[in-house]
Amino acid sequence: MPRYHLTIEYDGTDFVGWQRQENGPSVQQSLEEAIAVFAGGPVTVFGAGRTDAGVHALAQAAHVDFDARMPAGKVRDAANYHLKPLPIAILDAREVGDDFHARFSATSRHYLYRLIDRRAPMTLDRARIWRVSQSLDAEAMHRAAQALIGKHDFTTFRSSNCQATSPVKTLNKISVVRDGPEIHLKTIARSFLHNQVRSIVGSLVEVGRKRWPERKIAEILAATDRTSCGPVAPPHGLYLSAVDYD
Amino acid sequence: MPRYHLTIEYDGTDFVGWQRQENGPSVQQSLEEAIAVFAGGPVTVFGAGRTDAGVHALAQAAHVDFDARMPAGKVRDAANYHLKPLPIAILDAREVGDDFHARFSATSRHYLYRLIDRRAPMTLDRARIWRVSQSLDAEAMHRAAQALIGKHDFTTFRSSNCQATSPVKTLNKISVVRDGPEIHLKTIARSFLHNQVRSIVGSLVEVGRKRWPERKIAEILAATDRTSCGPVAPPHGLYLSAVDYD
Repeated sequence: MPRYHLTIEYDGTDFVGWQRQENGPSVQQSLEEAIAVFAGGPVTVFGAGRTDAGVHALAQAAHVDFDARMPAGKVRDAANYHLKPLPIAILDAREVGDDFHARFSATSRHYLYRLIDRRAPMTLDRARIWRVSQSLDAEAMHRAAQALIGKHDFTTFRSSNCQATSPVKTLNKISVVRDGPEIHLKTIARSFLHNQVRSIVGSLVEVGRKRWPERKIAEILAATDRTSCGPVAPPHGLYLSAVDYD
Repeated sequence: MPRYHLTIEYDGTDFVGWQRQENGPSVQQSLEEAIAVFAGGPVTVFGAGRTDAGVHALAQAAHVDFDARMPAGKVRDAANYHLKPLPIAILDAREVGDDFHARFSATSRHYLYRLIDRRAPMTLDRARIWRVSQSLDAEAMHRAAQALIGKHDFTTFRSSNCQATSPVKTLNKISVVRDGPEIHLKTIARSFLHNQVRSIVGSLVEVGRKRWPERKIAEILAATDRTSCGPVAPPHGLYLSAVDYD
């Protein structure tokens, strides 16, 4: 049975998150229902990562198996047709071998967090960016963030709901860069703990708004104490931006 | 009576346009109602340019007169407070002399048109960009557009509803540049005819998708014939991006 690797963009605002849940519509369920229409029966879509309610994706990865007698481009177009009018789109579909697994084959995940420091409420980018009223020092945030690179016990930046067996993760890259009126945090790791990026962003914003000294990020990391973390940043600024495979 | 120069951002999707109209909510009316709450009575907001239904603004300019005993920053914050939850925000307010007129003092207007060429429907940028299914040759569009620079009779690119006394306008700049997956058309002129930018974009897309040769833009301009124009581009890709004053 052919396996398809899907690259998926979505607006997470009105979903309970990536994963199927009892309490509302998920991205996974929406994809499964759209594909089932032309796949000839129920399918299961396996995602590279679970995004929380309100979190967006520029390029989530997933795989699905079904016996379609159609080229991958047709799978993409048919799924997009049946996804309408939901804000989920398959950007790319390609046939892969059955040794490919969207979650277990992934070598790294990339996240983008969009921040803006301005007094005025958002209009065009409402539910797309976290607005902070005070001005933020992006360079200080970037410097402070570098303490997080490498292999660490990230207990401080881990949700109490996190189901990972270990709090030890390796952060490959993290950068905080001003881009016009916006500030973009980008980070890459093989995998992340639940709420890790949002916990890091919330803590770095405390540095950016000068409530915390830059060195405090290294200190709270070393504390391995959830209560020392800053406020968790809201979901709507977060984007799963890429998933890498060998 | 103090005059305030306002810089305004809005999502034009759910408005009948900038200007007050009988048939639905306008940006102008929404601003007037929000400001009237704290201005002590009705006010009139004069905009630099009229945007059509669905057209957005990154930085529309306007002025308003009222006798507020508050600094300009408070005018901005109070207006934003009373505009909630509408997708209109005052980015900046400053007190100006009564010789300043948002419309008549403007020396140039800047527009941005966002295009994207991809098969998949839009999710995060729905109602923010014009999606064209075929791939577009942005460089060919840019070259063809250069024929429009300068002083010309723009009858070809003018809506039949245009109320300007003359079809002659001077286009200062026009560029078409690929920016990642998007294509951005930017243009500057002292003023534009009704639907001029959208008519130009629609015609340039015919060049970009290789239905028209590049030279056809110069030919239809010279024809001064509305029927030779390409399809008018949809409003939701268009942004009034700046208004200049001396």
